[in-house]
Amino acid sequence: MDEVRIIEIKKSVFDDNNADADKLRGELKEKGVFLLNLMSSPGSGKTSTLVRTINMVKDKLKVAVMEADIDSDVDAITIKEATGVESIQLHTGGMCHLDAEMTRQGLDNLPLSDIDLAILENVGNLVCPAEFDTGSCVNVMILSVPEGDDKPLKYPLMFSVCDLVLINKIDVLPYFDFDMEKCKENIHKRNPAAKVIPISAKTGEGIDQFAQWLQQQVAVWKA
Amino acid sequence: MDEVRIIEIKKSVFDDNNADADKLRGELKEKGVFLLNLMSSPGSGKTSTLVRTINMVKDKLKVAVMEADIDSDVDAITIKEATGVESIQLHTGGMCHLDAEMTRQGLDNLPLSDIDLAILENVGNLVCPAEFDTGSCVNVMILSVPEGDDKPLKYPLMFSVCDLVLINKIDVLPYFDFDMEKCKENIHKRNPAAKVIPISAKTGEGIDQFAQWLQQQVAVWKA
Repeated sequence: MDEVRIIEIKKSVFDDNNADADKLRGELKEKGVFLLNLMSSPGSGKTSTLVRTINMVKDKLKVAVMEADIDSDVDAITIKEATGVESIQLHTGGMCHLDAEMTRQGLDNLPLSDIDLAILENVGNLVCPAEFDTGSCVNVMILSVPEGDDKPLKYPLMFSVCDLVLINKIDVLPYFDFDMEKCKENIHKRNPAAKVIPISAKTGEGIDQFAQWLQQQVAVWKA
Repeated sequence: MDEVRIIEIKKSVFDDNNADADKLRGELKEKGVFLLNLMSSPGSGKTSTLVRTINMVKDKLKVAVMEADIDSDVDAITIKEATGVESIQLHTGGMCHLDAEMTRQGLDNLPLSDIDLAILENVGNLVCPAEFDTGSCVNVMILSVPEGDDKPLKYPLMFSVCDLVLINKIDVLPYFDFDMEKCKENIHKRNPAAKVIPISAKTGEGIDQFAQWLQQQVAVWKA
């Protein structure tokens, strides 16, 4: 099994996270690095979605991944082994989210001059990560079919801060009471501008659409 | 559709939550009320598990439920309609967890002298609720099959504070790469004393075991 670097993230001292996040976005713009912040509940399929997506874009974009977790390094190892791209593990020391300064600590451990797309896999949590701007260029979240189509009603902030919602595990739709149209309606109640792409990280369905969207976003950012 | 009371929970002013939680437990012991704190990720099946369980014990125990959510009142209405027991909605105002004082604000809205078992359905979140003792007599968590058998490795604190782990949605085991024995092993790495019961809130499998465990706990508490 590959070894990956584990970075112990320290608590931020900045009072104004929004200002710091804007500053980080400016720095990334200057360096031509696009930062994607990926959020979801535990077990929605963030890592397996990333593996599929990275393998689809890695010939066109130079990609690196930061895997944030309270403990363990299994996700960073999975990404490294399954895609070959640079992958580091960020340990949050029990903290339930990342803010801009914590994200910067991770980015400082990546070779930014050689990266087009940096991906932050945030802590699995539908509540706290939504409250903290990480300095990312876009926020993407995954809602998986087994979680239910009512989640936008219960976790409003998360859905309102995301540019794109991936609805994952559509391969198991026949086994769950999940109404795709109702789910989209609930998402758009919270965020009329949100783009929604149904995917299956298991079968690969829909990943091409996400990969295409991502490449467009990176191209616009670097233009 | 039934209407339910919605309680807007205020942020606590107590510095020492652990002391306050012990105090609340003492008060509950005196009143003969058993408090169950139920935690899980969003969409693991807390509400549907409660409906099944309450319908199994409500002839033997007087039950009331507090449904904590950032927004919406759908869960409290579901409990009331599907079980007939007293059910109130606690709105946390965006907060990602409940502590002892916030739990007390909920309990103050229940007719405690007429209740054996009070159930707190905590905010859907595997991180923050684990950090705050609510004053409950037991902590129970639900991990659902689609979330994956590796979750105890990634959310160590949650698994270590729970007396019982319910593994829900076992009806869809054939459609997911979920190793039940490995999952139990991962749970016991974090918490050797944790009891594990596989259930399906959809088919009802295993709910009788949980109901029996719960009745035993209440009997010991009230003895």
